[in-house]
Amino acid sequence: MTVKQLSLPELTETCVRLGVPGVGLWREPVQAYGVEAAARLVRDAGLAVTTLCRGGFLTAVDPVLRKEALDDNRGAIDEAAALGTDTLVLVSGGLPDGDKDLRGARERIADALAELAPYGARQGVRLAIEPLHPMFASDRCVVSTLDQALDLAERFPADQVGVAVDTYHIWWDDRAPAAVARAAERIFTFQLADWITPLPAGVLNGRGQIGDGAIDMRAWRERVDAAGYTGAIEVELFNDELWARDGVELLTEVTRRYLAHAL
Amino acid sequence: MTVKQLSLPELTETCVRLGVPGVGLWREPVQAYGVEAAARLVRDAGLAVTTLCRGGFLTAVDPVLRKEALDDNRGAIDEAAALGTDTLVLVSGGLPDGDKDLRGARERIADALAELAPYGARQGVRLAIEPLHPMFASDRCVVSTLDQALDLAERFPADQVGVAVDTYHIWWDDRAPAAVARAAERIFTFQLADWITPLPAGVLNGRGQIGDGAIDMRAWRERVDAAGYTGAIEVELFNDELWARDGVELLTEVTRRYLAHAL
Repeated sequence: MTVKQLSLPELTETCVRLGVPGVGLWREPVQAYGVEAAARLVRDAGLAVTTLCRGGFLTAVDPVLRKEALDDNRGAIDEAAALGTDTLVLVSGGLPDGDKDLRGARERIADALAELAPYGARQGVRLAIEPLHPMFASDRCVVSTLDQALDLAERFPADQVGVAVDTYHIWWDDRAPAAVARAAERIFTFQLADWITPLPAGVLNGRGQIGDGAIDMRAWRERVDAAGYTGAIEVELFNDELWARDGVELLTEVTRRYLAHAL
Repeated sequence: MTVKQLSLPELTETCVRLGVPGVGLWREPVQAYGVEAAARLVRDAGLAVTTLCRGGFLTAVDPVLRKEALDDNRGAIDEAAALGTDTLVLVSGGLPDGDKDLRGARERIADALAELAPYGARQGVRLAIEPLHPMFASDRCVVSTLDQALDLAERFPADQVGVAVDTYHIWWDDRAPAAVARAAERIFTFQLADWITPLPAGVLNGRGQIGDGAIDMRAWRERVDAAGYTGAIEVELFNDELWARDGVELLTEVTRRYLAHAL
């Protein structure tokens, strides 16, 4: 998604050329390209698929909608397995229309995980609950802090359900450093974007280039390192200005900024 | 600010007519009208000035800027006293340019409060630290949760420094209910707006009319009641669509929505 202006072949070719060892993929572009074809493309390029985004949307009350969500998530798990990644990132879902019960919504996420975690485990796919910034609490994700994500994850085996640590979502939280330590082996991915203002309308596409904003990237890197994390570090930018630029040039800048700020 | 389209005389006249017993005022409109004149106007109408917004902006590093901020806050305290309100709301300030140290910024707030709290106390003006939504952490307020606000307030006497509980800023936080109980007598004001999406560009003016969004207003009302709060309840809406409407009609709707959702 960071360089969505590049096709999958352009993306893999550029990653290889720049020495980027892996890429996190998103379901829709992969489905459009063909899951098996995408798997082959990335594998033949010698790249790892670090994660698949995204499953989730597990907060519906209506039983028909719940079943649809579970079916869709099982499909996402299948895709992750086909791509050869061990991690499916979950954007857990917002409040249903007219519903004001955050706690109930979080419990429904746990209910869904009880079904999806073993399904994932049978295919070697772990589920990573991603806490999203509180500004997304009503419409995208009622899980707003790393502590809340761990409160859910810890009900399940540590090799089945963990968390996605994303600097953009948690940088403001004075409890997040301790939560990173608490997460320990449940950190399934570590994602970077910088916090910049002003936020755009809809606040979805405001994620900033590494080094452009208020987040101390190195401090968060040191915290996940101290927690024992040795997995992939993914730069994940959603930004209309960045997307308007040349994709190869942008990806090159991403690598330089990562080396300068997060190594 | 909720009905900023009304002049102060129109505002007081309409409050009296509708039976609204008090109003929270903002520094700039009051300064424009004249502090003494505003005090007289509201007093003669038999209304309380529930709070004055706002002091704050206490995170500068530069000593010249720090002194300017303290001077400005002392002025705000003077204005609050002149208006006959006992509460100055603080929007504590964001990160200075290029600064990534949230904890340092929060400590500088505490340093400033050490000077301002006694100054306020001598004039019967209490300081209410308002935690702002985490989306404002870099550019407006590094205090993002009620717990963080209390961590600061509790360093000072309970009759000098407390907190402003604002549903819009804290509704998503699973720790906020316990923090409201923790706040107890340090709740100096209780402010309401509803959470609606999509957020507008800049995310400042997205506060929703009571009843239009995701927040369980009555639940928060019950929590502050249970904490022992008996003070004013202020509806505080910043919303371009609402501001474009007739001010009297809007204020009338505010009263109806308050009665329906927060009584």
